[in-house]
Amino acid sequence: MTRPRDSSTAAAPTPDPVDRAVAASLHGLQYLRNADIGTRTHLLTSLADAIDAQGDHLIDLASAETHLSPDRLTGELARTSRQFRFYAQVAEDGAPFAVTTDHAGPGLDCDLRAMRVPLGPVAVFSAGNFPFAFGVLGTDTASALAAGCPVVVKAHPGHPRLSRALAELAADTFEALGAPPGMLGLVDGFDAGPRLVQHADVRAVAFTGSLAGGRALFDLAVARPDPIPFYGELGSLNPVFVLPGAALARRPEIAQGFVASFTGSAGQLCTKPGVLFVPRTARIGEDLRAPLAAVAGHRLLNEAIEGRFAQRLAAISAAPDVNLLGGDNEPPAHEGTTGPRPTLLVTTIAGFLESLEVLGEECFGPASLLVEYDRTDELVEAARRLPGQLTAAVHAEADEHETARALVDELVDRVGRLVWNGWPTGLPVARATHHGGPYPAATVPGATSVGARALDRFLRPVCFQNVPTDLLPGPLATDT
Amino acid sequence: MTRPRDSSTAAAPTPDPVDRAVAASLHGLQYLRNADIGTRTHLLTSLADAIDAQGDHLIDLASAETHLSPDRLTGELARTSRQFRFYAQVAEDGAPFAVTTDHAGPGLDCDLRAMRVPLGPVAVFSAGNFPFAFGVLGTDTASALAAGCPVVVKAHPGHPRLSRALAELAADTFEALGAPPGMLGLVDGFDAGPRLVQHADVRAVAFTGSLAGGRALFDLAVARPDPIPFYGELGSLNPVFVLPGAALARRPEIAQGFVASFTGSAGQLCTKPGVLFVPRTARIGEDLRAPLAAVAGHRLLNEAIEGRFAQRLAAISAAPDVNLLGGDNEPPAHEGTTGPRPTLLVTTIAGFLESLEVLGEECFGPASLLVEYDRTDELVEAARRLPGQLTAAVHAEADEHETARALVDELVDRVGRLVWNGWPTGLPVARATHHGGPYPAATVPGATSVGARALDRFLRPVCFQNVPTDLLPGPLATDT
Repeated sequence: MTRPRDSSTAAAPTPDPVDRAVAASLHGLQYLRNADIGTRTHLLTSLADAIDAQGDHLIDLASAETHLSPDRLTGELARTSRQFRFYAQVAEDGAPFAVTTDHAGPGLDCDLRAMRVPLGPVAVFSAGNFPFAFGVLGTDTASALAAGCPVVVKAHPGHPRLSRALAELAADTFEALGAPPGMLGLVDGFDAGPRLVQHADVRAVAFTGSLAGGRALFDLAVARPDPIPFYGELGSLNPVFVLPGAALARRPEIAQGFVASFTGSAGQLCTKPGVLFVPRTARIGEDLRAPLAAVAGHRLLNEAIEGRFAQRLAAISAAPDVNLLGGDNEPPAHEGTTGPRPTLLVTTIAGFLESLEVLGEECFGPASLLVEYDRTDELVEAARRLPGQLTAAVHAEADEHETARALVDELVDRVGRLVWNGWPTGLPVARATHHGGPYPAATVPGATSVGARALDRFLRPVCFQNVPTDLLPGPLATDT
Repeated sequence: MTRPRDSSTAAAPTPDPVDRAVAASLHGLQYLRNADIGTRTHLLTSLADAIDAQGDHLIDLASAETHLSPDRLTGELARTSRQFRFYAQVAEDGAPFAVTTDHAGPGLDCDLRAMRVPLGPVAVFSAGNFPFAFGVLGTDTASALAAGCPVVVKAHPGHPRLSRALAELAADTFEALGAPPGMLGLVDGFDAGPRLVQHADVRAVAFTGSLAGGRALFDLAVARPDPIPFYGELGSLNPVFVLPGAALARRPEIAQGFVASFTGSAGQLCTKPGVLFVPRTARIGEDLRAPLAAVAGHRLLNEAIEGRFAQRLAAISAAPDVNLLGGDNEPPAHEGTTGPRPTLLVTTIAGFLESLEVLGEECFGPASLLVEYDRTDELVEAARRLPGQLTAAVHAEADEHETARALVDELVDRVGRLVWNGWPTGLPVARATHHGGPYPAATVPGATSVGARALDRFLRPVCFQNVPTDLLPGPLATDT
């Protein structure tokens, strides 16, 4: 469905919703291009207001479709309307547009002005695990609109009713402002994804999801006659390294923190620690049993995801030298309606490296892997073998900095964020925030989907040489 | 050859020069990472000094290998050493590294610091048409080193002796400074290109060259298990649009300017105007004959390029409705040792759009195409059908701005630089300069290979959360 408000009045389903949505988005682009920045920011804050006003209804829909708790969803909804207000402010401040003026003078025989302009329509693939914050009206949509790009969202199959409600909310808001509905289109169905990525008028893609699905779409984006940027977040293991001194000094605290971090939101966070490197001699497993037993089972987002979680867990468990924690032979718990209980597996560093292809890829859900090491130089080797990561964390005592140095050097090469004596979940948002990293954490190594720089993904510079004032874009015409 | 200074002492040729060069570059990366910014900028300015000191020798080599005039090469060499000094200053100023510090406080429960770090070894494919400015020590190499990335250059086959001399100059400079030679490696031969792009330790590619060759390498870069950024400049038509009033008022001046622009450096500039849209009724062809006849034939860079130029010209000439200017039936001039004389073809706007696949791609060498139109709205349609361009130019009188508006809107969507009443050749360099554009002008739409932002291609942000000062990169440790 392209324009939710129209579909009820159409006599018959249109044959090509993707074409219709992209064609409508070009009208949205024209509108955004001609509107001044005040109109654009008013549009963003109006969306924020509408999200807040419909909060209870939206949370009910999301809760029914995702099994996420109303508490968690309430916080996420507030974050989502806040994102629109934040990006309105970023756009109004103007930094992403990089307005630059060089007047003719010594060494320059012309007037040069430059600013960054919108790339054009952006295809956004909404994520399953954040139905609001990375959904139809999530950070990709908010930052693209703030950059001046219309958006066509591919709805996540996990929450179709919520996706439609969010698109209708946007259409109502645009209508009330006299803005074209094409600024936000919605399409669904498996085939819509590839068609959107390959559509001639789509100029960029933003995707958050699995490695397999994301890579397939990435491959289509770069195989086009005119390749377009594909900003994908395709998964991360978020390894945590516990040095011997820290294990000795803070074993129970680390065990508690780890369980809380990997089981939060039923392990369905992109920053979930998927592997914990611990000294074998510390026997941290003993400290983990109690906090682990205290975490109840929880339904995952939907049955398809529960099915994939069980499959991934089976594959991990089948790797050589991988055991359930403490040698417990019970199969990973999966209790139907109550959802899977958290599962912790354990292996050696040799076992981890031997099966890196299986163990080095994100397992989405409440599972993690202890990797026991004997010598700290093994950690450097393990870090060197890891693919790109959103985050890594190191736990170390004050007298272990020299031991940590080589590890830190390796990790800086492989991560977007390095956490010291903390956990990767709970992304702190400030100016220095970066949510990205080398492939597959991000498909474009410098891109971030969170924070002010998220707009940069959808802009490119144009330089104007001696162009008369009345033909320049507004911000360049008024700059002196 | 990886390390030119070593090859003479080797007993036998090494079996794998690409592996050897990339392995050496990792030592270079380690050196650049540990060196302070003063060491890095001293290295860059030392290269500039060495280029200037060896100028006469280098210009002799380049002149013999490229047929470019000593005058042109003298200017280009000066530009090349200036680029190193400029990027030293950009690195010293620090803006590209985007050092950011957020201290814990209200709303933030941790210390966050971020800066952009080098991606790692960069593969640079040197261009044929600028043996200095886009060569072994060209802008890609200078900006990558300034960003902190070692470089492995694939030598252009058109000037092997010059490439080797430049790599030796770099190796001598590094040796004198006690820096590792691996910061700049050189490889040659056709197979070295693909192998370099696919090498596991290469983290980015910079390429200036043809659409066919560049796209083949782009496809390899994005098909890797871990795709890497490919910054390619793959050709541009640089269309120039002459509105009716301008044609009427300035026909002889426009004809002179056009011939000078498309024949400069024997048409071997990336910003050469490859097509000139003119009103049919203006009969500008008559004004072009004299300036065209005044331009002598000139050898192209090498025989391979002369061969490809003749082939491309034959293909363009064979398109329906394409004629030699004025209906002259002489075949395009190609006089052996004196090189091809400038060739101007003419067609209608219908003929241009009908054969867009052939006529819309850059023809490297001294040829251009007049496209005659009847109505200005045909120009908007032609602009809409064009692929991405480095530049476009519009010639218009003061009373033609309204006529130009729709055309300008289309062009802004398709170019990196828009020139008013001027010619695309002679890139003015200042803060607002952008040398890039939508595909195929650039494979990454926001990237530029000229100006201060060229460093951005080789950097990515890393955020440090609560990391102790003694483990932070220098610029973050000292920032307060």
